Amino acid sequence: MIEQLQRLPGVGPKTAQRLAMYIIKRSETEVEALAQALLDAKKQVGLCKVCFHLSAEPICDICRHPQRDNDTICVVSDSRDVVAIEKTREYRGKYHVLGGVISPMDGIGPEQLTIEPLVRRVSQNQVKEVIIAISPSVEGETTTLYLGQLIKPFTRVTRIAFGLPMGGDLEYADEITLARALEGRREFN
Amino acid sequence: MIEQLQRLPGVGPKTAQRLAMYIIKRSETEVEALAQALLDAKKQVGLCKVCFHLSAEPICDICRHPQRDNDTICVVSDSRDVVAIEKTREYRGKYHVLGGVISPMDGIGPEQLTIEPLVRRVSQNQVKEVIIAISPSVEGETTTLYLGQLIKPFTRVTRIAFGLPMGGDLEYADEITLARALEGRREFN
Repeated sequence: MIEQLQRLPGVGPKTAQRLAMYIIKRSETEVEALAQALLDAKKQVGLCKVCFHLSAEPICDICRHPQRDNDTICVVSDSRDVVAIEKTREYRGKYHVLGGVISPMDGIGPEQLTIEPLVRRVSQNQVKEVIIAISPSVEGETTTLYLGQLIKPFTRVTRIAFGLPMGGDLEYADEITLARALEGRREFN
Repeated sequence: MIEQLQRLPGVGPKTAQRLAMYIIKRSETEVEALAQALLDAKKQVGLCKVCFHLSAEPICDICRHPQRDNDTICVVSDSRDVVAIEKTREYRGKYHVLGGVISPMDGIGPEQLTIEPLVRRVSQNQVKEVIIAISPSVEGETTTLYLGQLIKPFTRVTRIAFGLPMGGDLEYADEITLARALEGRREFN
């Protein structure tokens, strides 16, 4: 059991041992409930057929939600990013989960991602805006530029702002962040 | 000596002791040179009469520089921010150092800062753009809004971008940063 638990992300030998000791001390019913929950989740959770977000249903809650705008698609690399953006409660459109970023070093090209279904979605539906929300790494930038060129013929493409994080101190910001914060300056309203 | 050294920022009892031991072991000439350097710097470095950046001359190097644009002023709270922005090598205009941010809790109102000289500078010279580059804290926001309203009648006012820092991961960004990154999204070019 310890060996298996150690494979989980962020679980080292000590944590694995602590978890194992805890599990052994529980009643058989409790352990069965935990084991079943893992199996059920693995069996039930797949990817939404429309946006590729994790979902227990063929089409996810967000895609089926009647109050969410169909004409805006926010493109993210991972399902965790959907969760992060949902927490802001600021976004009312739909998503598209790429399943990663273009990274030739890791053998991930456009065809390994859900880019083709995204282009199909954008070209076949009335989409007014595609917001690219990909983290600003080298691979992220490559992916953003690639997607932007691909989608621009169909609709308006925007990308999230880069600059100083909230509570971030100008003095401690790295030079590239500061340069982009200056470059991306906005009119004062 | 240890007592005095301990007053420096970031210097605790142990560091102060280590510094003191080091100084005691130097030759008298070396210690005199160090002491004199402190005195000279304190005597010589004052504030630029134009922009209030630290300067050994009545008017600082940046304000006197012939190749820097006179028509753009970047407003920062502290001289350290000037140094940070200069390191990006992206900005070719002038600066204005406020000497802090508006903070009623600490008894700092607009009159404690160099806001009046800034308004005079903007109203009496041909300034095409004032970029407000103040760190996004509660006090920083207050100061930015106050300055924006004050300067808008004279010229174009912009503010630096807030959003994801470079290398920052969307998933780990706090909700406010993410919300502002979405809100501040830009056209893809």
